[in-house]
This record gives sequence, structure tokens and C-alpha cells, in this order.
Amino acid sequence: MKLYTFDAAPNPRRVNLFIAYKGIEIPTQQINLREGEQLGAAFRAINPRCIVPALQMDDGSVLCDGIAICWYLESLYPQRPLLGVGALQQAQVLSWDHLIFADAFVPAAEMLRNRSSAFKDRAVPGPGPVAQIPELEARGRQRLRLFWQYLDEQLKGREFVVGNTLTLADIDAFVVIDFAGWSKEQVPESCAHVHLWSARVKARLSGP
Amino acid sequence: MKLYTFDAAPNPRRVNLFIAYKGIEIPTQQINLREGEQLGAAFRAINPRCIVPALQMDDGSVLCDGIAICWYLESLYPQRPLLGVGALQQAQVLSWDHLIFADAFVPAAEMLRNRSSAFKDRAVPGPGPVAQIPELEARGRQRLRLFWQYLDEQLKGREFVVGNTLTLADIDAFVVIDFAGWSKEQVPESCAHVHLWSARVKARLSGP
Repeated sequence: MKLYTFDAAPNPRRVNLFIAYKGIEIPTQQINLREGEQLGAAFRAINPRCIVPALQMDDGSVLCDGIAICWYLESLYPQRPLLGVGALQQAQVLSWDHLIFADAFVPAAEMLRNRSSAFKDRAVPGPGPVAQIPELEARGRQRLRLFWQYLDEQLKGREFVVGNTLTLADIDAFVVIDFAGWSKEQVPESCAHVHLWSARVKARLSGP
Repeated sequence: MKLYTFDAAPNPRRVNLFIAYKGIEIPTQQINLREGEQLGAAFRAINPRCIVPALQMDDGSVLCDGIAICWYLESLYPQRPLLGVGALQQAQVLSWDHLIFADAFVPAAEMLRNRSSAFKDRAVPGPGPVAQIPELEARGRQRLRLFWQYLDEQLKGREFVVGNTLTLADIDAFVVIDFAGWSKEQVPESCAHVHLWSARVKARLSGP
């Protein structure tokens, strides 16, 4: 088993934090997204979707996408569970992971990829090519502001996003806040519940 | 437990097909998306995200998003499993469900919602408002064509998407093909594996 990743990128970072919190070690190889290594022939032969994280099994098959990789790793290493305990909590983590992807990761990625010349003709992850649409920067920012408000309302009176225990849903939201910062989009001060929660998550992720 | 849904819409249809295949019955209420009922005060009080499907529990809490609702229902009704058997298959279904959402449902929705006057200022599902960006119609079509090719390559030599057994991943892909048709985007004849697979899925979903 081998994890292809790139530590600086937000989707890999979610899986990295998941692995670190569980205290496990997975053989890892960096694929340098800044140099376009994910689009080269060597990695394309491993993962034709040209994205990381990608977990290669011993039979050569590849498992992509953060939620799927975390699901499989949690089954192998059940200690310090991060995907919910019991079917309802698991479903709630799946729901939040989906929501945070659709309503926060996608808008944050749209802001970055449709503005920066580094992403010319790579406005969407994967082999593409996909041309930039500059109007998506403003839409991304607008959608993130709706998401911050929603997250703030949901965190009122709660310690963590699901079940008052740290889960992948917290990691997802924590990482996307940093990612939005790459496009100078910050959670407003008025979202006090988000700021208090973020400090709790940071402490839990850096704690023993 | 009560499912809020709208049978004609693609995301609810995935859950409907899941429920029908498993042979279970869930109390259901239609929320008429064509008349904007999801944005009205009554439904907003139930689900502030203003989307269906939404599964309301007996304690009033609401579970959204197809994958989460299906996960919870599969735990209650394990017969005729559709989310994979064993952790690796489950992870593969999660991966495909995510891929099909990100690379096919989102582009198909972008084509429809950024073109039709019926979606003016509702270019993204949820309470919004989000203005249309007409260039997303062409991008959505381009991305769907990349997805058809990828799906066709992956289905070569396979009966179904995951584990050679019908899963939610097949339902997802089957539904998104119809949904793309709303914007006159069809799977090309050259994707022969997709067409053969689609006939298999249709037979299994309508069979006993």
C-alpha cells in the first residue's frame, strides 16, 4: 500500500491530518503538483484521473478521493475513530464531508483556479484541459460567505461538527478555511462560533 | 422518519432507485422544486439548506445528501446491499459516488442552471441567490464528455462499476446520464461499454 500525495495541497492535507491524528504511518510518495508531476506519463499510468491523494493497493489498483481513502484506512486502523461511531453518526460525517466539498472546497478551488495564471487551462482538477472562467472568482467568494454563515449557525452550542467529538468533518472544514485564505477569503469576525471551534480543532489536532 | 424529496429531480431519483431496489418503503413528502417550494418558509424551517432529498428523523434532525441518506438506510435495511460488501468495496463505492458527483452531476447541473431562465439567480442549489454564468454551459458539456470517456474506459471488461455487482455507483452514473440529456448532452455511440452497461443497469433496476 502506498499513498501518493502532495503535502502542500488542501485535499491531501485532509488525509494527512486524518493519518497523523490516528497515529499511523503509510508509505508515501510526493507528487509535485506545482511542477505538474500529476499530469506526467509516470503518474498518469498509476492514476489516469491525475489527482492526489491516491492510495495504491498491493494489487496495483488505486483508490482516490479523501473520503474513500479515509474510509478504507479507518477499517484497517479503527483506533481513534474519525468517521463516526454507529450508522447515524457515520451518515452525518458523510453528509458533512459532502457538503463541505460541494459548498466550500469547490468554491475555494474555483476562486484559485479561475484567477491564477498558474492554472491556465487547468481550471478543474484532472487531466483536462479546461479553460478559466474569471467570473467564478466572485461566485466562489460569494458561496464561501454563505458557507461560513451556515457553519456558524450549525456550530452554535456545539463542540464539534458531528456528535460533539472530533471527526473528519472538522478536519474538512478546518482545512478549507486555510485553503480559502489562499484567495484572501477569511471567515468574518462575526462568525464567532466558527472561530471558537477552529481553536478547539487546532488544539485537538496538535495534541497527544 | 420521513423523506422529503421531488421525484422528477436527479438527486432525489438516485435515492428513490436505491429505495425501490431494496424493496423498502419510507414515508415520503414531495417538495415541488418547480414551484420553488424548497425555498419557502415551511420547508426552510425543516431544512435551512433548502435541498432535497432530506431525511427527517423522529427527533426532528435532518440528514441531507444522497450518499448519507443511503448509508443510513442501508444500515437499517441491509438486504440487497448497494453500498459494497466489506471495507474496500465500500470505499470504492464512496470514491465513485464522489467522482460521479464532482465530475458529472456538477457539470450537468451547471449546464442546466446557468442557461435556463427558470434558474435565474439560482445557479447553484440551496438558498442562494447565485447569479448565472453562461460560459458554464460549454464547460459543463466539455467536462461531461471527459467523464463519458473515463467511464467507458473503466467499464471495459466489467459488468458493473464496483465489484461486478450492482451498487449505488451504477445508480449514480445511470441517473446522471439521463440528467445530462435534459441539456441535450448524450453519451456518444463510441462509448460502447457505457451503452452495454447502461442496458444491464436498467434491466437490474426494473427486474424482480
